[in-house]
Amino acid sequence: MSAMHDRVARNFAAQGLMKTLGARLARVDDGEVQIEMPASPALSQQLGYAHAGAVTSIVDSACGYAALTRAPEGCDVVTAEFKVNFLRPALGERFVAVGKVVSAGKTMGVCTGEVRAYREGAQEYKVVALMQATMVFVRP
Amino acid sequence: MSAMHDRVARNFAAQGLMKTLGARLARVDDGEVQIEMPASPALSQQLGYAHAGAVTSIVDSACGYAALTRAPEGCDVVTAEFKVNFLRPALGERFVAVGKVVSAGKTMGVCTGEVRAYREGAQEYKVVALMQATMVFVRP
Amino acid sequence: MSAMHDRVARNFAAQGLMKTLGARLARVDDGEVQIEMPASPALSQQLGYAHAGAVTSIVDSACGYAALTRAPEGCDVVTAEFKVNFLRPALGERFVAVGKVVSAGKTMGVCTGEVRAYREGAQEYKVVALMQATMVFVRP
Amino acid sequence: MSAMHDRVARNFAAQGLMKTLGARLARVDDGEVQIEMPASPALSQQLGYAHAGAVTSIVDSACGYAALTRAPEGCDVVTAEFKVNFLRPALGERFVAVGKVVSAGKTMGVCTGEVRAYREGAQEYKVVALMQATMVFVRP
Repeated sequence: MSAMHDRVARNFAAQGLMKTLGARLARVDDGEVQIEMPASPALSQQLGYAHAGAVTSIVDSACGYAALTRAPEGCDVVTAEFKVNFLRPALGERFVAVGKVVSAGKTMGVCTGEVRAYREGAQEYKVVALMQATMVFVRP
Repeated sequence: MSAMHDRVARNFAAQGLMKTLGARLARVDDGEVQIEMPASPALSQQLGYAHAGAVTSIVDSACGYAALTRAPEGCDVVTAEFKVNFLRPALGERFVAVGKVVSAGKTMGVCTGEVRAYREGAQEYKVVALMQATMVFVRP
Repeated sequence: MSAMHDRVARNFAAQGLMKTLGARLARVDDGEVQIEMPASPALSQQLGYAHAGAVTSIVDSACGYAALTRAPEGCDVVTAEFKVNFLRPALGERFVAVGKVVSAGKTMGVCTGEVRAYREGAQEYKVVALMQATMVFVRP
Repeated sequence: MSAMHDRVARNFAAQGLMKTLGARLARVDDGEVQIEMPASPALSQQLGYAHAGAVTSIVDSACGYAALTRAPEGCDVVTAEFKVNFLRPALGERFVAVGKVVSAGKTMGVCTGEVRAYREGAQEYKVVALMQATMVFVRP
């Protein structure tokens, strides 16, 4: 496990919400992080789809951790703002949020993210949400 | 309890995520809905604040239900998109999300929302997040 | 003319785009700036309304200048990001963009804005666009 | 010239703002449109860069026209909302806005866009702005 993966994994383990949502860190690359979350009635909105808030939570964390892989040494990352478009109902067996860094400076980074929905047994996914976000580097 | 309150309350009760987050419907007026959520380690990000995703979840639902109070008869509401700015760390004993309808037509509505953080024993709040959202009316 | 008004007015005069759009600085208060733009075929989209880009330009500048009234001494302001909802067709004789600071720190500020459309001879306006923006303070 | 290109080109010619900004339609493909705009002091903000509003105007039109290539027969396109992140100062000899359709239904489409800045004589570009937008199909 690389130092970069370790840095992200320790931070992820400290996010109570990720545990509450049943999410797990699926992949950490330089500038890209993936988080997976199984579908559950505990995450639903009123029609049975995954709630926009649950979908947003994992892609926000994925973008934040993507930014963390590019953050200055000793810095943590907090979300300044994001925008999400919901392209279709979040239906599936599991969801994978992919966050990528588009550009990063000394004080902030801009990321894009998407959430992919996988139906049971399917290899192919459908993108259910798109994020564009600004992450800020902070010294805790 | 008014028909409008009842319409929102039944819908809210069907959102698994609201229960998971410990959120409750606090107020329903024509064009404005409030949702309250106590702070909890189960909702935290890595520094112990409420996670941006938890904060977003309640203000998304508050905006959606504000739109529902103006939705055509028989319609439900789903989120098309939103944008959130996080103004300061989400620290407090409890959070109240306020969603308001700015304009609503036959097929969609635009809402603004904010999340207020209350410290223990304090009457005054600090706004920790601002939302601007588009809600779409759908016939289930 | 106050030092604050003067600071904004000199900066505004240096924005070539404001002149190109026929916009003028209408009001400068602490934390709030208004910019007015007469409707013109030169600003139109294909249906004859004011183009979303023209509407956005004046409310972006209004938000930026609202932030400038709260910027640290010697700092200029640039736009980090914004989001705009268009509530109705931008029809009118003139448009007034109002930008307000919601919160400002040492390095950035969050603003909200709206664009008001005035029909010929009318005292009342309709809000045609809503903005939520992040402005960054820079030392030129 | 294809029917699709013709449909976009006629619509573009009716946008007064595009002429005012000196913008021209550079490319029309199914689901993707490019608009080019030369840098000019008439488009500047106070530091001499292209104003965020000018940059936004061309990428808004590029996204709108990308949506138009997927719009139902007889429909026009208007912008419901967009969000733009500005990644770096908009410096260059010319700017090319690229708008792409991510998904489109019967009543609306979601698009992403970027604005590329070309320095004098350079083949390579830098992305100065990222857009995520919702376009609505209307019957004029």
